[in-house]
Amino acid sequence: MPTLYNRIQGRNIDRLAALSDGIFAVAMTLLVLDLHIPSISAVHHEGELLGALAALGPQWIAYAMSFLTLGILWAGQQTQLNYIAEGTRDLTWIHLGFLFAITFLPLSTRLLASFITYRAALGMYWLNIFAAGAMLYWRWAHATHARLIKADTPDEVRGSICRRIVIAQSFYAAGAVLCFINTWVSIGVILAVQLNYAVTPSVWQRRRN
Amino acid sequence: MPTLYNRIQGRNIDRLAALSDGIFAVAMTLLVLDLHIPSISAVHHEGELLGALAALGPQWIAYAMSFLTLGILWAGQQTQLNYIAEGTRDLTWIHLGFLFAITFLPLSTRLLASFITYRAALGMYWLNIFAAGAMLYWRWAHATHARLIKADTPDEVRGSICRRIVIAQSFYAAGAVLCFINTWVSIGVILAVQLNYAVTPSVWQRRRN
Amino acid sequence: MPTLYNRIQGRNIDRLAALSDGIFAVAMTLLVLDLHIPSISAVHHEGELLGALAALGPQWIAYAMSFLTLGILWAGQQTQLNYIAEGTRDLTWIHLGFLFAITFLPLSTRLLASFITYRAALGMYWLNIFAAGAMLYWRWAHATHARLIKADTPDEVRGSICRRIVIAQSFYAAGAVLCFINTWVSIGVILAVQLNYAVTPSVWQRRRN
Amino acid sequence: MPTLYNRIQGRNIDRLAALSDGIFAVAMTLLVLDLHIPSISAVHHEGELLGALAALGPQWIAYAMSFLTLGILWAGQQTQLNYIAEGTRDLTWIHLGFLFAITFLPLSTRLLASFITYRAALGMYWLNIFAAGAMLYWRWAHATHARLIKADTPDEVRGSICRRIVIAQSFYAAGAVLCFINTWVSIGVILAVQLNYAVTPSVWQRRRN
Repeated sequence: MPTLYNRIQGRNIDRLAALSDGIFAVAMTLLVLDLHIPSISAVHHEGELLGALAALGPQWIAYAMSFLTLGILWAGQQTQLNYIAEGTRDLTWIHLGFLFAITFLPLSTRLLASFITYRAALGMYWLNIFAAGAMLYWRWAHATHARLIKADTPDEVRGSICRRIVIAQSFYAAGAVLCFINTWVSIGVILAVQLNYAVTPSVWQRRRN
Repeated sequence: MPTLYNRIQGRNIDRLAALSDGIFAVAMTLLVLDLHIPSISAVHHEGELLGALAALGPQWIAYAMSFLTLGILWAGQQTQLNYIAEGTRDLTWIHLGFLFAITFLPLSTRLLASFITYRAALGMYWLNIFAAGAMLYWRWAHATHARLIKADTPDEVRGSICRRIVIAQSFYAAGAVLCFINTWVSIGVILAVQLNYAVTPSVWQRRRN
Repeated sequence: MPTLYNRIQGRNIDRLAALSDGIFAVAMTLLVLDLHIPSISAVHHEGELLGALAALGPQWIAYAMSFLTLGILWAGQQTQLNYIAEGTRDLTWIHLGFLFAITFLPLSTRLLASFITYRAALGMYWLNIFAAGAMLYWRWAHATHARLIKADTPDEVRGSICRRIVIAQSFYAAGAVLCFINTWVSIGVILAVQLNYAVTPSVWQRRRN
Repeated sequence: MPTLYNRIQGRNIDRLAALSDGIFAVAMTLLVLDLHIPSISAVHHEGELLGALAALGPQWIAYAMSFLTLGILWAGQQTQLNYIAEGTRDLTWIHLGFLFAITFLPLSTRLLASFITYRAALGMYWLNIFAAGAMLYWRWAHATHARLIKADTPDEVRGSICRRIVIAQSFYAAGAVLCFINTWVSIGVILAVQLNYAVTPSVWQRRRN
């Protein structure tokens, strides 16, 4: 039996959700702090400003990709939380591990934006996404095993949440492996996977209706 | 029919509102991080400090304008959310697109404060406001179309929310076009429109009562 | 009569409170970002590190004073919100004006920490506290006048909230005026007033019980 | 008897929890802002990037340790809040004192990461953890004494919360004292204590089930 303190700790799912929302909000907004604007001394007329903005392109792609990543992970974590009735201290710590990966993403993004043609930078970025996904999977597995999931949750929801993580992470891993050809190919594939999760399904839906 | 996972995702409007509040809070506070204070080595007596503070004027105007922009957009988004009964994954992603525009505003502001006489900087600033407004419009249109709006919402409220966005954005666009005369004229008009939304109506009300 | 949109806007007091909590949380944490640590090249042994930390003293006083200020203002604004039943768009904008003053405080603090012997820096710091207090007073006056206060609020609470703001601001103003003698005298008085609001009353209480 | 204003202030525990979650979220995310990435000019091929990342090791250890610290303190403070029925102004100010220690942790971390072999830096880091723990203890003692704890809280919970703080802080103090041998020994012991609170108990539990 766990000690008393371990049993009374971390019961409140609402506080966990509030901490998550706060961390995602800060991480999403901090991404922009790393974007530089053209230096004043290098710009003398309108054309130079537009040129300098265009030259910041690679940075901005890494930034947009990270916002998408954070959006996907935020949506994923809160979908899970909606089905969890109660927390435990283990769930709290798995969740804090997930949030640790989230707070790391602005750093991975900065690394990738600075070294966008380096496989080591892309590998670290992928590792970060993988760590976040793995913690989400673990959290759901733990919640299932420890019977923390709301009683009225349909069985197909339980499977659906696991499947979604495994499929998305497989695509990310496949994209990351392509960095041995070229990091830009990797980034293109990862972005395509992310846009698929964010945008395409709603287009598909509309067609079918 | 959308897949099961897409149906169970993003139902909770409260979490969406919490993420929004967090992002607005961070963006509003981060704006100040870009304001510089006079350098210690350039100031030797009280008069020089006052002079150096006054010289930071253009920066501070861009900052005040951005706080007003964020205030107007925050009030707009939360008025909508009050009438939305339930989320969907599409609504979540439209909302995340809106928040993406919000996180961008500190960067546009920094650009405008550094290049306040450049049309390219003003154009980008306007584009940012326009993108946020367009996402808000799209969100409401989607919520109406997907029947996510609370059943007891009067019909005139539905139209009123759309109209408000269209009118405000028309004024902003008109203001932005004036940058072909002079960017300061644009900024003056945009500030006047914003102050009208923030301050004047309450003066008008008082007179009529 | 205000237009329809102005009547439906800003009703939700909970969202206003959440935005406030977010802005206070960010502002309180950002204060530390402006504190510098000793430079690595200037420190060669334990004694030098302790000396360098001690030399950062003035900075840290400004920082502690600002945390106290934010704490007092946060406690004040949430005490008010607990008695307000419903918002209006006017209340929302008065509140956003208050939050504008809050987001400015890290900047005023940085200015004061850099120019701690300058009356202009102290005057601006005081102006910031005054602006925040004035908005709080205005918000309560507006809530009273527009009948937004919960029906079961005792009459003495209404007066008590106004009185508290007026008395505290009088002390702050008196403290600020003392900067014509010396800014350190001002800072000492302001700190004493703040500590009185934060700490002393509970000591007084204990004695009386 | 306290004055009326002091009796009406700070009743709402939910707002205190929301402010806490916000400050923890910002502090956890800001830690990463202090991590540097290798400079572009120093890196010419994949191997150099990996080497440069590895050289950032000490920084990252301090960062991971601080995230663990914040996680432990967050879990501790919210476990307490779950058992507190109502606030008072004294409780609010003890809690704000606790949050003051929390906002300071990113600074202590930066100091430790820069001067990781200095006892003064480690001592200050420990002082920060100690201050946070002491405020948590004081808060619980005050809540007990002022009868703010929910009526249905079992007696063993009351003792358990105090014991947990005293035991954890004793371990931290013992770890800190070891810096007179070597700061790395201290850091190793503190990390081991933290990992014990975060990870090990759940392993122990599993074995016993």
